[in-house]
Amino acid sequence: MELLKRRILEEASVLSADVLKLDRLLNHQVDTALAMEMGREFARRFGGERITKVITIESSGIPIAFATAYTLGVPLVFARRRKTLLAEPDAWTERVPAFTKGIVTDLVVSRHLLSPDDTLLYIDDIIANGDAARGLIRIIGQSGAKLAGVGIAVEKTFQSGGRLLRERGIRVESLVRIASLADGKIAFE
Amino acid sequence: MELLKRRILEEASVLSADVLKLDRLLNHQVDTALAMEMGREFARRFGGERITKVITIESSGIPIAFATAYTLGVPLVFARRRKTLLAEPDAWTERVPAFTKGIVTDLVVSRHLLSPDDTLLYIDDIIANGDAARGLIRIIGQSGAKLAGVGIAVEKTFQSGGRLLRERGIRVESLVRIASLADGKIAFE
Repeated sequence: MELLKRRILEEASVLSADVLKLDRLLNHQVDTALAMEMGREFARRFGGERITKVITIESSGIPIAFATAYTLGVPLVFARRRKTLLAEPDAWTERVPAFTKGIVTDLVVSRHLLSPDDTLLYIDDIIANGDAARGLIRIIGQSGAKLAGVGIAVEKTFQSGGRLLRERGIRVESLVRIASLADGKIAFE
Repeated sequence: MELLKRRILEEASVLSADVLKLDRLLNHQVDTALAMEMGREFARRFGGERITKVITIESSGIPIAFATAYTLGVPLVFARRRKTLLAEPDAWTERVPAFTKGIVTDLVVSRHLLSPDDTLLYIDDIIANGDAARGLIRIIGQSGAKLAGVGIAVEKTFQSGGRLLRERGIRVESLVRIASLADGKIAFE
């Protein structure tokens, strides 16, 4: 998606060889017109899949997941992150490490929001090692819902998250693929 | 907003005399068409105010704040919540209690995202005692930005949050006003 590449070059900064800071564009301030375009692009790519709900993880994924769900005319569900795992009999929970934060959080989705009748599209802003994605996909598995695919705004292909999902046969669509952040430079694939 | 009232009667549940559960509608699952309508309504009410950015607090406020900002054609900024206050020289931070969670969190907004040239519209899903709202408004004050007003989807008028903001001369627009949740019943004003 050329528009997103251009905006990344204008607004993003490289924090380290692993971390791209997108906080003027996606995950603290949001370019709303760009996010809606990204949602339309995901809706176009997955439009043939009879999606019943879009799912994401709070908070950074919410704007583009909302834009995708709105375009598809379906509800959005966002998994909650909790710092401590309280017993929640009415929710599915999965413990995951968070790549940029150096901490562990629990993903929580209320059981009544997903069912075996659902076909889900998981949308997120960025994929690095994919720990959170795999946690959410375990929750989707427990719910019995079908996962139609995963839409990622920015895939860092030098980390393993996207590749590991594809190796499991999951359809992963990235709008932008970044091959390297070495030497403070953004190298697209 | 009659559509929102109807959807609340269909989907919300009363957890206690103080707490309305909106997790099928706004803050865990999101009715995306309804959220976009709410955004359009806020954009209509504040359309004359030359808003430069919409601001909210993660996570529940993000969908309707995004819809409002998208309709107004401006960026969205969402304040982060942190459990521990690390020294953040590049951010404004305010410590606030969280009404439903029984814990204290810190609101964080990066300094480079707000300036005295900004006119902000603060959008949130629900207002109870208004602690988070006042925290965010203190951050806005520190930034020098102008606050054009506050748009709230669901105001519980039997709690003091909305009233306290109005007493300070802040324009507060609520789409739905709830006078009581006593006896498990939702009584609109």
